[in-house]
Amino acid sequence: MNPLAELRAAAQEREAAGLRRTLRPRPPDDDLLDLASNDYLGLARDPRVVEAAVAALRTWGAGSTGSRLVTGSTRLHGDLEAALAAFCGAERALVFSSGYMANLAAVGTLARDGLVVSDAGNHASIADACRLSRARVAVTPHGDVAAVEKALAARTEERAVVVTDAVFSVAGDLADVAALAEAAARHDALLVVDEAHALGVVGEGGRGAVWAAKELAGPVSEQSTALFRESHIVRTVTLSKALGSQGGAVLGTPEVIETLVDTGRPFIFDTGLAPACVAAALAAVDILLSQPELPGTARARARELASAARALGLETSEPAGAVVPVVLGAPEAALAAAATCAEHGVRVGCFRPPSVPRGRSCLRLTARANLSSDDLAVIRHALTAVAEVKVRA
Amino acid sequence: MNPLAELRAAAQEREAAGLRRTLRPRPPDDDLLDLASNDYLGLARDPRVVEAAVAALRTWGAGSTGSRLVTGSTRLHGDLEAALAAFCGAERALVFSSGYMANLAAVGTLARDGLVVSDAGNHASIADACRLSRARVAVTPHGDVAAVEKALAARTEERAVVVTDAVFSVAGDLADVAALAEAAARHDALLVVDEAHALGVVGEGGRGAVWAAKELAGPVSEQSTALFRESHIVRTVTLSKALGSQGGAVLGTPEVIETLVDTGRPFIFDTGLAPACVAAALAAVDILLSQPELPGTARARARELASAARALGLETSEPAGAVVPVVLGAPEAALAAAATCAEHGVRVGCFRPPSVPRGRSCLRLTARANLSSDDLAVIRHALTAVAEVKVRA
Ligand SMILES: Cc1ncc(COP(=O)(O)O)c(C=O)c1O
Ligand SMILES: Cc1ncc(COP(=O)(O)O)c(C=O)c1O
Repeated sequence: MNPLAELRAAAQEREAAGLRRTLRPRPPDDDLLDLASNDYLGLARDPRVVEAAVAALRTWGAGSTGSRLVTGSTRLHGDLEAALAAFCGAERALVFSSGYMANLAAVGTLARDGLVVSDAGNHASIADACRLSRARVAVTPHGDVAAVEKALAARTEERAVVVTDAVFSVAGDLADVAALAEAAARHDALLVVDEAHALGVVGEGGRGAVWAAKELAGPVSEQSTALFRESHIVRTVTLSKALGSQGGAVLGTPEVIETLVDTGRPFIFDTGLAPACVAAALAAVDILLSQPELPGTARARARELASAARALGLETSEPAGAVVPVVLGAPEAALAAAATCAEHGVRVGCFRPPSVPRGRSCLRLTARANLSSDDLAVIRHALTAVAEVKVRA
Repeated sequence: MNPLAELRAAAQEREAAGLRRTLRPRPPDDDLLDLASNDYLGLARDPRVVEAAVAALRTWGAGSTGSRLVTGSTRLHGDLEAALAAFCGAERALVFSSGYMANLAAVGTLARDGLVVSDAGNHASIADACRLSRARVAVTPHGDVAAVEKALAARTEERAVVVTDAVFSVAGDLADVAALAEAAARHDALLVVDEAHALGVVGEGGRGAVWAAKELAGPVSEQSTALFRESHIVRTVTLSKALGSQGGAVLGTPEVIETLVDTGRPFIFDTGLAPACVAAALAAVDILLSQPELPGTARARARELASAARALGLETSEPAGAVVPVVLGAPEAALAAAATCAEHGVRVGCFRPPSVPRGRSCLRLTARANLSSDDLAVIRHALTAVAEVKVRA
């Protein structure tokens, strides 16, 4: 069969299932209130971030010009790696061109031919990382630490890696990092925690979920005997959400970072992150240091959104970070609700399969630290309309 | 076994095999002549490119703030997609955060559960794309069109995709795109051509290898009956080499692009490319339009490098683009040769396994359109020293 005809036939099936997608390029300033981006702290357009990137462009040029191992490592990359490691309390960091690539590299390279245990709710980039690895993959039910422990105990492979989102990207809930870390440590496994939606939002000053779990685990002197072995935890982060830039990083011990530098294909065979993106992320980390209250503000706004939705009878859950899902069910219902929000001046995310399980199509609202009380009033208005449409449907 | 101890043991094995790698962050300006980057036209630091990126930063902010399907599509992304498609003579284009991600999406999404036929010399991102796809993978010997045809003919799967580098990234040779396109068309397969090292270097005005093959295939009126079916060719490009920026794109028919938008996981689940990178690439395409001689100059410089190396008895090959390999053999020999070049003021790429097959460690010299005759003299000097060391070894 003609391959293009086949693609057309498949597109018609998606059309019938309400699963077509359209790109709608946005203007630099439109009238819609942004409740859809991952710019949780409003830093993407912060002048300090923007001007740091401008300076980097003029000093270093538009591209890094090569693989990190050839010409693509500028001193800026080194500076960002040092800043990220220091901020998050990790020994070392390694910057990638995206969070997606950081996940592909971390999981694939560390699991090798062993076992990867992955939460069913993990982000697509982690699912792809599992598939790309040569490891056997065990998918455990969402949030089920006992199932993780069981998979580790039953393994025949020497190596094992447990991998989880910190804050799940659409459901917005928090993984039990402390329990997973203990399970991993008990079974000589590494734990990879994707802090994509936690960095800059969760934990003291936005240091993420691993930091928060470490605080819970108690002072260092006890940690050595406790099962919380920080050195067995590898973190991946993205620079594209709370940091307002683009790119990703892996944080871990020197052993982990050196393994990625020597053998991580998505590290070795990719062009280094553009200097402007590196500088923007570096400026954002500086802002987090000087304004440690920002993450708490973003979380408070998220709780306000969730309670507004709940008060209107909409299905939501208590947010751990800045992500607030509002579950509508069918893809058409989610699309209609997103359109209602837009009519009321609010841009929200609309998630349908394959981004969410069938029957769980939802709006995804994201709080920002810089939402004003006027903004919150507009949002309440939009959610009220969504709730009314839903009752009528 | 303690997972960190295991990583340390593996690192010691790599050390013994001469396969450790070190990141050497570079300063913005050093004394080394760059013969290692992929900045083939010298555009990464071109003021027109840099200032376009600066303007984009100030208009749009540092990050695109979300998935291309949510908030990550700015009008700039649309403009770049239109410009790339027009420049390369494709119907549509879709921008990704890297060329790596563009390959992962194109191959995986189009091959689905069919067959992928991949050249043994293809880039790591293509090999990873094959592995990530759910398709059966047939790896054919480098440059062997008959083997490709045989794999397609023998398949039991409905769908098939043939995938090849246009200019191979280290060996620097050109794929026989016309012959591969005919083979694919005869067997109802799509052909994916990775133009990473061809865009801006190969073909009229730098329009790439598919454009060049199309020119060879003759005027449009004949194409409809000929076996060169342009609509069955999908191209991937990177914005990070000749265009001096970062990012990637897929070029193809509306059917192909819409399939990627609806179902391409590395498209849907990744943050859109940063506006500054989009604008830089757009400015670079404009420069290619206004200075169509640049690609030819880069190719001419490459041929000069190759003939200089050959005249000194070094193993190289006739370059199709801007990549000139100088094969040394053992990893240690390649490392020593790279050090010799650095002593003589020239920065070159040094490629060892797994980037190249065992026994084929090499220097990778890259020509730039803006190499002066003084630069060429310095390079000849450095290569002379490499040849002398080699004779003594
Ligand atoms: C949990 C999670 N991990 C990783 C990523 C990928 O990060 P990036 O967009 O920087 O590639 C995302 C979103 O894009 C995400 O939500
Ligand atoms: C042939 C080829 N394809 C794809 C890529 C990946 O492109 P990018 O660096 O933009 O991810 C590269 C090099 O990095 C390459 O050499």
